[in-house]
Amino acid sequence: MNDNVLVIAAHPDDELLGSGGTLKKLINHGHNVITVIFAKGRKEEEIQMKQAVLEANNHLGVEEIIFLEYPNLLLETFPLHIINKEIEALLVKYEPSMVFTHHYGDINMDHQILFQAVLTAARPLPEKKPIELICFETVSSSEWSQHTNDKTFKPNYFVDITDTIDKKLESLKFYDKEMRPFPHPRSYEGVQYLAQVRGMTIGVEYAEAFEIIRRVWK
Amino acid sequence: MNDNVLVIAAHPDDELLGSGGTLKKLINHGHNVITVIFAKGRKEEEIQMKQAVLEANNHLGVEEIIFLEYPNLLLETFPLHIINKEIEALLVKYEPSMVFTHHYGDINMDHQILFQAVLTAARPLPEKKPIELICFETVSSSEWSQHTNDKTFKPNYFVDITDTIDKKLESLKFYDKEMRPFPHPRSYEGVQYLAQVRGMTIGVEYAEAFEIIRRVWK
Amino acid sequence: MNDNVLVIAAHPDDELLGSGGTLKKLINHGHNVITVIFAKGRKEEEIQMKQAVLEANNHLGVEEIIFLEYPNLLLETFPLHIINKEIEALLVKYEPSMVFTHHYGDINMDHQILFQAVLTAARPLPEKKPIELICFETVSSSEWSQHTNDKTFKPNYFVDITDTIDKKLESLKFYDKEMRPFPHPRSYEGVQYLAQVRGMTIGVEYAEAFEIIRRVWK
Amino acid sequence: MNDNVLVIAAHPDDELLGSGGTLKKLINHGHNVITVIFAKGRKEEEIQMKQAVLEANNHLGVEEIIFLEYPNLLLETFPLHIINKEIEALLVKYEPSMVFTHHYGDINMDHQILFQAVLTAARPLPEKKPIELICFETVSSSEWSQHTNDKTFKPNYFVDITDTIDKKLESLKFYDKEMRPFPHPRSYEGVQYLAQVRGMTIGVEYAEAFEIIRRVWK
Amino acid sequence: MNDNVLVIAAHPDDELLGSGGTLKKLINHGHNVITVIFAKGRKEEEIQMKQAVLEANNHLGVEEIIFLEYPNLLLETFPLHIINKEIEALLVKYEPSMVFTHHYGDINMDHQILFQAVLTAARPLPEKKPIELICFETVSSSEWSQHTNDKTFKPNYFVDITDTIDKKLESLKFYDKEMRPFPHPRSYEGVQYLAQVRGMTIGVEYAEAFEIIRRVWK
Amino acid sequence: MNDNVLVIAAHPDDELLGSGGTLKKLINHGHNVITVIFAKGRKEEEIQMKQAVLEANNHLGVEEIIFLEYPNLLLETFPLHIINKEIEALLVKYEPSMVFTHHYGDINMDHQILFQAVLTAARPLPEKKPIELICFETVSSSEWSQHTNDKTFKPNYFVDITDTIDKKLESLKFYDKEMRPFPHPRSYEGVQYLAQVRGMTIGVEYAEAFEIIRRVWK
Repeated sequence: MNDNVLVIAAHPDDELLGSGGTLKKLINHGHNVITVIFAKGRKEEEIQMKQAVLEANNHLGVEEIIFLEYPNLLLETFPLHIINKEIEALLVKYEPSMVFTHHYGDINMDHQILFQAVLTAARPLPEKKPIELICFETVSSSEWSQHTNDKTFKPNYFVDITDTIDKKLESLKFYDKEMRPFPHPRSYEGVQYLAQVRGMTIGVEYAEAFEIIRRVWK
Repeated sequence: MNDNVLVIAAHPDDELLGSGGTLKKLINHGHNVITVIFAKGRKEEEIQMKQAVLEANNHLGVEEIIFLEYPNLLLETFPLHIINKEIEALLVKYEPSMVFTHHYGDINMDHQILFQAVLTAARPLPEKKPIELICFETVSSSEWSQHTNDKTFKPNYFVDITDTIDKKLESLKFYDKEMRPFPHPRSYEGVQYLAQVRGMTIGVEYAEAFEIIRRVWK
Repeated sequence: MNDNVLVIAAHPDDELLGSGGTLKKLINHGHNVITVIFAKGRKEEEIQMKQAVLEANNHLGVEEIIFLEYPNLLLETFPLHIINKEIEALLVKYEPSMVFTHHYGDINMDHQILFQAVLTAARPLPEKKPIELICFETVSSSEWSQHTNDKTFKPNYFVDITDTIDKKLESLKFYDKEMRPFPHPRSYEGVQYLAQVRGMTIGVEYAEAFEIIRRVWK
Repeated sequence: MNDNVLVIAAHPDDELLGSGGTLKKLINHGHNVITVIFAKGRKEEEIQMKQAVLEANNHLGVEEIIFLEYPNLLLETFPLHIINKEIEALLVKYEPSMVFTHHYGDINMDHQILFQAVLTAARPLPEKKPIELICFETVSSSEWSQHTNDKTFKPNYFVDITDTIDKKLESLKFYDKEMRPFPHPRSYEGVQYLAQVRGMTIGVEYAEAFEIIRRVWK
Repeated sequence: MNDNVLVIAAHPDDELLGSGGTLKKLINHGHNVITVIFAKGRKEEEIQMKQAVLEANNHLGVEEIIFLEYPNLLLETFPLHIINKEIEALLVKYEPSMVFTHHYGDINMDHQILFQAVLTAARPLPEKKPIELICFETVSSSEWSQHTNDKTFKPNYFVDITDTIDKKLESLKFYDKEMRPFPHPRSYEGVQYLAQVRGMTIGVEYAEAFEIIRRVWK
Repeated sequence: MNDNVLVIAAHPDDELLGSGGTLKKLINHGHNVITVIFAKGRKEEEIQMKQAVLEANNHLGVEEIIFLEYPNLLLETFPLHIINKEIEALLVKYEPSMVFTHHYGDINMDHQILFQAVLTAARPLPEKKPIELICFETVSSSEWSQHTNDKTFKPNYFVDITDTIDKKLESLKFYDKEMRPFPHPRSYEGVQYLAQVRGMTIGVEYAEAFEIIRRVWK
């Protein structure tokens, strides 16, 4: 059960907003979580942000963090197959059993592109270890897309994070600069209320919701 | 601005859960709200429940309440055109400018049927006053449907209910027997957390979310 | 890991066609599978068919089989909440961790109704053990629906059944009366070819494909 | 090319509103069109209506008309498999190459049911002649449904009816009692404007639009 | 009620084709309409076209017109966030209560990109005035997309333009060079027939149809 | 019946994988098939690949093959209107009655772009000959996309290729370098099993499945 779980996020803090509580739970169950951050933060705070990523993830128990340092909001300027290759290399190296990434319908273009690239890189070839591919929702992106079919988030997987919500919120503190006061969705309260709504959907106090794209039992 | 607004609900408390804060806001703006309850409560508490409906709605400021007394969970046993006729008669009588009703994707069969009937009864014929047809979401029904396209709730209308959430929660107290302890979604906290999540989506403290089916400006 | 798995099928043989290979795999992994057959076979062969169900399932390793004996093709004549109650009772009794049932988009009305009833009965209430709700595809029903959004089968879960396809095909032999010569989809070859196509999608020789509706990790 | 084409309509005039121009064109090309009317007209005008169906269809060139005399708006009270059987019998008798019927998303319940029944009856079994299954749109039903995914009409087949629109409008005159003054969609002008909009979509003066459900080339 | 309404169009004439009648109606009701044209016309007629935009809009009653002068058919060559910024600046400047723009499913790439940019720029942040975001349909683009789910136009808002259709058609005359003879959809008759079909859907002579993406009542 | 059929494929072998059996059948019926290959193969095998395209297509009976020599996996780096123009020129030159191309939901970006360009180039203008626009599925691309609405392949057209499957498989042999051993979907067995599954859906031994986007009968 000592397997690898990859969380592939466009920007610093997405990894925690989307799946922080679940990552902590996976760590508690002995999984090895690796965080991949695709894009750099804004220029003026690049170094600080990198530090924040390390501290936030370490606090959660993630020890391996990969910075790919693509320019923020500009993933679209790279041919998709370049981004695919980056991810393929990571999949070869870590052979993860699960990959968490952005939702294809998010309003943020980098999120959409990353989803496409991960979907491509993780295609279930004969020689490859099967990967469970899972999309998380990201406050201030997923809910602001249009609510039509291939854009709206359609959760089919819920993880009880009652035991790890505190750790999630604590870790988010390292990204305090990115957080806004409620009622902005990217706020401590916002994260908590969403977790409570996702929680009550499955009868627990706090949960994170996901959309499973492909799960394989070999 | 002294026009009528109809809220057509399958069961007692649905009208409040779905749109209580918005109804209060409409009343505050001078609209006249009429509540229609289609089905009776469970046998053993039928009379009590009727009393609760009256008190809850009155507390919110709704003075006219119509009980259609269909059997609970059995709307499907009536031909749809019978139910259509009931609603058509109400539309003729009240000539509402807005009608709030259940979402077509709710897990509850009565909700689905009522939506179909309202959609049919409210079709925009030449001689009729235009009706804005709006679906509300109902905790413990909308979120428990499968999250596929024509079932998932796809909100496109948000109402800030920061000023009326308290009144909504107070009015729900009259339905205390129907409410459950959190983390059941049909709980006081559940209603509040959902309102906060819908609120932050539009940058306010509390909101109700709706799916507009048809809006007409004549 | 000695937990219960329920497969809820409308008609004899659906349980095998949809998930026979996966059920065998689950049994091999120590799960306890219970088969529920909702409707009776055609009148003239009712007793024979019951015998076939027992033998086919026993051959696969399923020891507990429940016959609910509803009339074939007539589930729609019962109020849905009656069918819900049947299933709720089974869920209370067996407390399964997984439930396999029909796809909501199947062309067969009994399949659609059963899905709705299972979805309702399995709603994730606070006091209940979480259930993984999974739809299987059924040759000669799923592929004959219209291929529009909420009808087409959208697989997101694949199970490698390379080791159990033989057992699946052997067990189907007990339903020989229901099977047709290829190119009818309900044929031995048909079942095999579909398993090969689902298999190659994930890089294995044989697989069964499923649509996960809701998965919960408490 | 002397093959049969079946148009299966819920109510008198639907067959013309939906596909009158195309039926005439098919007749001009040597096809043999058979009209099937499922439901009776309103009681007080049942006989007159039957007469109108005969005259309208004859005027268009349809010589064979079948009245199934189901009660209006009450198809839902029959088990679907009964209706399936009716249609199966017609398919056995006529062995049509094309079947035109209602759209699955129409607001009218009879339309929806008929679609389901035709879809089931026309499933492409090995021993059967392949059938092209095509949905037409019906003014005052298709456009009044909710415009969500599995309800909205999604045309993928357009037939130029510039040469037959006049005949279509003339034939509709026999249903004058059912027609309304414009701007009701079930009006002579309404039928014409819709044909012009569908026409310009493919660069012709008048067209009818359809949604092909299944087409087979053996 | 002296608020601003923005119409953000990719190319000259889109603003009128999509929403000309409604814009005139809004002007008549005291709203202040501002037209934004993103792309230049074809090189050889750039100056003439600019003149046409001014005259057409002035004739309709729009006094403020903004030319952003992006190259035609090449919006995709700019990173989306550049286009977002352009629109954000306009939203800051004008604080509109409504924004009309292209539909996300249009066949024209510039239309799709503009929708994405407007959706992003208009996200409902706490500090911002709420914006009603509305998509119009554009003859010769919306109807030529594939009719699948996230591409087909799904109208949920209809505006009676019986009183303003003449003004719309007159204003279109300034774009006479862009208009084609019927049965091309971008023709005077085409615009009129579509308005009649949209009109009869709500029982009026002429209407424009829209898809509301997000409406907020604060 | 001596008309032209265009198959527009992104990469060598896509044209055969997707529609080889149907192309052969069309040739047998007297149609003239022209193959268009948009992108070059990988650098090191460019010339060999070109030779393979010629031989494979000739073996099938296709005599005219057009190489557009775009760089592989890089169609997204060209403005879409450039690609549109290429296709428009081909449509003007060949005036095809049918065009086969990739599915809009394929995981491969080149496939998606080509679909968009063909859809645009083939829009049904008044002066143009009507084109039947048809998407094929491509093993190792279509099935690896996410199975959501606007991505999943939704077949509505099936062609019996029992008489031409052998020729299809033989022709694929010229692309042997691109083929992989089963259970990779791009394998001889993979192609065959998929054909058998598509076949049994319509009751024949082998079929190819397609999604008709637009069909016009003038």
